Amino acid sequence: MENKNTIKDFFPVWDKLTDEEKSLINNTAIKQSYQDKKCIKFGDNECTGVVFAIKGRLRVYMLSEEGRELTLFYIEKGDWCVFSASCLLEEIHFEVFIDVEPNTETITVPAHIVNRLNQNNIFLENVMYKKLAERFSDVMWSMQQILFKRIDQRVAAWLVEQNTDEIKVTHSEIAQNLNTAREVISRMLKYFADEKMIVLSRGKIIITDRDRLTDISQ
Amino acid sequence: MENKNTIKDFFPVWDKLTDEEKSLINNTAIKQSYQDKKCIKFGDNECTGVVFAIKGRLRVYMLSEEGRELTLFYIEKGDWCVFSASCLLEEIHFEVFIDVEPNTETITVPAHIVNRLNQNNIFLENVMYKKLAERFSDVMWSMQQILFKRIDQRVAAWLVEQNTDEIKVTHSEIAQNLNTAREVISRMLKYFADEKMIVLSRGKIIITDRDRLTDISQ
Repeated sequence: MENKNTIKDFFPVWDKLTDEEKSLINNTAIKQSYQDKKCIKFGDNECTGVVFAIKGRLRVYMLSEEGRELTLFYIEKGDWCVFSASCLLEEIHFEVFIDVEPNTETITVPAHIVNRLNQNNIFLENVMYKKLAERFSDVMWSMQQILFKRIDQRVAAWLVEQNTDEIKVTHSEIAQNLNTAREVISRMLKYFADEKMIVLSRGKIIITDRDRLTDISQ
Repeated sequence: MENKNTIKDFFPVWDKLTDEEKSLINNTAIKQSYQDKKCIKFGDNECTGVVFAIKGRLRVYMLSEEGRELTLFYIEKGDWCVFSASCLLEEIHFEVFIDVEPNTETITVPAHIVNRLNQNNIFLENVMYKKLAERFSDVMWSMQQILFKRIDQRVAAWLVEQNTDEIKVTHSEIAQNLNTAREVISRMLKYFADEKMIVLSRGKIIITDRDRLTDISQ
């Protein structure tokens, strides 16, 4: 992915904004660097604005009453987040939590500015709802994995059963073994890698957190 | 809810459509009556169009590989469904299934017509994405119940423990008992009623499917 350093680089409807709207965004946007992990949205209690990830990434998750976390998806470098401005999306009635990961840089357009722009520019509002629809797909994917296919369990079990921390295997080979599609395996492995349980490299998988994989496999 | 018999009654952006667009919709919309249950969307394989429920209701659900169903939400009389036109929403990458329930009447605007209108009318596209955002909230609610709170289990357990099929109780009293909010209980009871496990009437709850409630409670 090419480097994206300004909002202009990120934003699919930048060209639909007037010059006035563009300068309002540029003059109010806040650039921030995080060395350590930080929670920037705690349930209903924050509505910072639209956050663009220039470097590093953000994690969006749910939290149970007992404090159990469930990762819904990541906002990777080069992508942007509308959940940090969910107060502007009146159809959203659920709480999510957002952590900025260590070594992350963001640009935030404050919620009240986005709100003002949305009033007059339906293209901007529209692109926010489309981003939300993308996340809906991500969440449905997670839900299907968790509720139905237990593919996480099956892949984790397969990995820990190999009795080595450096497994020479292709994604297709695992897929054949577990009677599922290569895409499903690749996505699951990416999830495990995101969660730092494994490291993916060409032609092999390195297990870095066998305990957690074992937990998942049971 | 007042009776809604034409698309005009339903559609939040009807006034934003040109006369030409309005007549295109009116001339192509298809009215249908269903006496029996019928699946109108089977995973990825159908993209009928935007469906308006004039009478009865539709059920939107997921299906596991083993055939297990999970109800995501209902499209009640007076509401409308964009998942039956999900081919027009390119951000949607998941499969849902839609059943029309017995004694239901619908009006469908075919997908290719909606697609043509969306090209020229961003208000129409925008309202479809907003409806999608509403459903996202519904799905997140279901997910939270299922994954975290197990409130379904706790409410079901409380109901079957009462040792009578006609329980005189208010929603607030159950909420106090289970140490949760009245709104949560009301929503859960509505879900049980939708699933025909109980009937709700003023000041009492009538159990109509004790076996299924017992299953859930365990």
